[in-house]
Amino acid sequence: MESFLSLETGQNMRQTQGRIKERAQAMAVIPSPSYSITLRLEIDNRVGMFAEIATAIGKCGGDLGSIDIVRVERGKIIRDVTVNARDETHEKSIVRAIHRIQGIKLRRVMDRTFTSHEGGKIEVRSKVPVRDQNDLSKVYTPGVARICRDIKGNREHAYRYTIKGNAVAVVTDGTAVLGLGNVGPYASMPVMEGKAMIFREFAGINAFPLALATTDTDEIIRTIRHIAPAFGGINLEDIAAPRCFEIEARLRASLDIPVIHDDQHGTAVVVLAALINVSRLLKRDIRKWRVVMTGAGAAGLATASMLASYGIRDIVMCDKHGVIHAGRKVDMDPYKRAFARRSNPRKVRGSVAHALKGAQVFIGLSGPNVITADDVKSMAKDPVVFALANPDPEISPEEALPLVRVLATGRSDYPNQINNMLSFPGIFRGLLDVRARGVDEKVKFAAAQAIAHIIRDDELHEDYIIPSIFNRKVVGAVAHAVAEAARKGGLAS
Amino acid sequence: MESFLSLETGQNMRQTQGRIKERAQAMAVIPSPSYSITLRLEIDNRVGMFAEIATAIGKCGGDLGSIDIVRVERGKIIRDVTVNARDETHEKSIVRAIHRIQGIKLRRVMDRTFTSHEGGKIEVRSKVPVRDQNDLSKVYTPGVARICRDIKGNREHAYRYTIKGNAVAVVTDGTAVLGLGNVGPYASMPVMEGKAMIFREFAGINAFPLALATTDTDEIIRTIRHIAPAFGGINLEDIAAPRCFEIEARLRASLDIPVIHDDQHGTAVVVLAALINVSRLLKRDIRKWRVVMTGAGAAGLATASMLASYGIRDIVMCDKHGVIHAGRKVDMDPYKRAFARRSNPRKVRGSVAHALKGAQVFIGLSGPNVITADDVKSMAKDPVVFALANPDPEISPEEALPLVRVLATGRSDYPNQINNMLSFPGIFRGLLDVRARGVDEKVKFAAAQAIAHIIRDDELHEDYIIPSIFNRKVVGAVAHAVAEAARKGGLAS
Repeated sequence: MESFLSLETGQNMRQTQGRIKERAQAMAVIPSPSYSITLRLEIDNRVGMFAEIATAIGKCGGDLGSIDIVRVERGKIIRDVTVNARDETHEKSIVRAIHRIQGIKLRRVMDRTFTSHEGGKIEVRSKVPVRDQNDLSKVYTPGVARICRDIKGNREHAYRYTIKGNAVAVVTDGTAVLGLGNVGPYASMPVMEGKAMIFREFAGINAFPLALATTDTDEIIRTIRHIAPAFGGINLEDIAAPRCFEIEARLRASLDIPVIHDDQHGTAVVVLAALINVSRLLKRDIRKWRVVMTGAGAAGLATASMLASYGIRDIVMCDKHGVIHAGRKVDMDPYKRAFARRSNPRKVRGSVAHALKGAQVFIGLSGPNVITADDVKSMAKDPVVFALANPDPEISPEEALPLVRVLATGRSDYPNQINNMLSFPGIFRGLLDVRARGVDEKVKFAAAQAIAHIIRDDELHEDYIIPSIFNRKVVGAVAHAVAEAARKGGLAS
Repeated sequence: MESFLSLETGQNMRQTQGRIKERAQAMAVIPSPSYSITLRLEIDNRVGMFAEIATAIGKCGGDLGSIDIVRVERGKIIRDVTVNARDETHEKSIVRAIHRIQGIKLRRVMDRTFTSHEGGKIEVRSKVPVRDQNDLSKVYTPGVARICRDIKGNREHAYRYTIKGNAVAVVTDGTAVLGLGNVGPYASMPVMEGKAMIFREFAGINAFPLALATTDTDEIIRTIRHIAPAFGGINLEDIAAPRCFEIEARLRASLDIPVIHDDQHGTAVVVLAALINVSRLLKRDIRKWRVVMTGAGAAGLATASMLASYGIRDIVMCDKHGVIHAGRKVDMDPYKRAFARRSNPRKVRGSVAHALKGAQVFIGLSGPNVITADDVKSMAKDPVVFALANPDPEISPEEALPLVRVLATGRSDYPNQINNMLSFPGIFRGLLDVRARGVDEKVKFAAAQAIAHIIRDDELHEDYIIPSIFNRKVVGAVAHAVAEAARKGGLAS
């Protein structure tokens, strides 16, 4: 089948991989806007002062950004100088270097990431002003009583006359936040607010973050059931496995609005989209592939389950104890057991390395350095490696790139970023648009297909199997496909 | 003491009362913006057509509002005509009258109160845009992880870097909504959203409405405890008595943010503010008054309790069975019993009418037509009557006005509107400003004093004992007083 790899494409690929490697090496030390500081400097008004500052920042490896003049005082210029650093230690070394320059006084250091969180990142606003008694009598008493009576008579009207029709709760218990783990509800809020921003900015949805002060499964379920009337959908977020599976399943069974644990299905949808595009690129049948996965957490099990539902039969799932199979006793839970029963048809046992031999696809949703170059070499021809652990993938991209046909990561600094931002805004947009009562596998398949087909056949490429998260076509396409699938599946109201 | 009523003031009062009476009679039939409809009319382009429309609306008693030309088609003008009606029956009669005019086609009827609720009345927005990877890396991954770690290390920073510092949950179970009663969570949402709008528009607070799908006291308490981390305060709303007392008390005991059931304390604060101003106006000591109240619901009991804490000893509280006293057996609950023990020092028993004899003040927080003109006549000289039941007061204002020194109602179409919009935006603004861990009586007294003293001594008048809800000085004054009281009381962080 390697004939599909034309010389041209092969060259392209190798050239791109060369570029990627250079960039990757640079990226590892490159300053980033997430460590951006603004220094307010009082500078003696002498020739050459600014060059000194620029030199000092450059020598430390800092990246000089925007420069504003705040004002001029007698003999002094007050400037705001923005510098991107690599990390907090680097920030401090830059500040020290500036400090050492004669004729400069450092008035203030503003960390722009912290500044951008000051006061929270979202706000609740009125859609119409309340200036006078006239306004008030429409949106509040006495006029509002008419709307209340209308909804009391027909509950479905809540979708029309309250925010329910365009509102999603982003609910977490703070137990599995980003790469940080169990940070608790307070510390999880910046992530939930960020998620709410993405809902607004990408899909025009009113999302409100609720970080719960409980980690008890029953309590979480009851709380979400109780708060459901205000919302048209529930986005569960960063809840640790295996609790997340039970919470989602029980909420789906009892609520009449869609409930989606994004860490599971958001990721699964985008992985499937990427695999669909690999199969389009390589012109092979995805269902016949042998897929090996690492990571049996929320994302891993959900992705495996979705791929199985899609028709891929030969999936071998591994965790830190190696292959999960029906006969294993160590560290099993009902979810692993259920999955073991419906996968692994060749009854593989043993290590990840063993499982990978001859496989076409590796999907890592686990942690850093789980597979080696030798493992990749043992895979079938044209190996496809999705090393999605963040920030450190299951195998370093530099090591993997020369060995694989397609590499995808979870990072924005390599091509083929698998990011659930591609799925959740459009999925909820589509579900809200049809007032969906729930969500099913077909809805998720439709979303994956829509994401995949944003890329046209003639655009497909080893480095372009998944669209950019900033490709504004994605949300509309996903929403449309999801709405249609929900309608066909009888989930729409 | 009647010497304080100067001739001039007396005249003013009688004149004003004359005006009020006229207006009141008119108001009873006057069309209101809460029944405002917009008719899209296709009008034959002939002379005199518009006069016919205006005449038809006028004849029905409709109030012609704005008129827009939508467009001109051949021989036709398409106009949007806005009409205020009295009620839904009146709306329909106006529509029928328009229908009967020859040469006019009614294309569409838009009810502006319903239109203003379309899609909900609030929205959640991002405070900063998310345009590219740079933005994203600050407000979401990877930058956000730094903020999470910072809050994990110091939970108090949640006030600074998340919406907690400026967010209030408006929570209801939908059991005591406006005058509508138990309409359930879905139908209560328009009121909660209206409340959220007021928080935003009057006090710049991010308020999010949560209508709970449970009426169980324990479940409500647990749910609110669980969702608390995202918020700097909890505004309980429209929860039926006596459950609301237990819910508030238990939440206050267990949460480290202020919890206020607005129906109780919002009303109590404004009633106290009004009484303080009556005492300033009449130059009498409020603590020596005999006060009779009707309505032992949330607002009634909370107001009575606050007045008692303020120092008024002689309060006689009545419900539908008459005076509540320590020896009564019928329809008592722990809250009524507790209040009976600390009030009613003259051990009054019997009817409201009996209790009112010789009283200086009547405060009704009950229902329509609970007292008569004869009851008012039996009160002490210069009776003060707060007939606050909405929309129909305990005694009709027209009947009461000639008999009383000061009348207050809950309605916007009479002077002296007792409206808790005067209190809750400023109270929460002040509490959030100092990151208050709770709220106490002194905070509420401070709020009442601040509201009262918006009116200067030389402005005080029988018809002006309470500022307008649209007086923009109120929120700032209340917030300032509340913040100071919270600081002094050790409630500030």
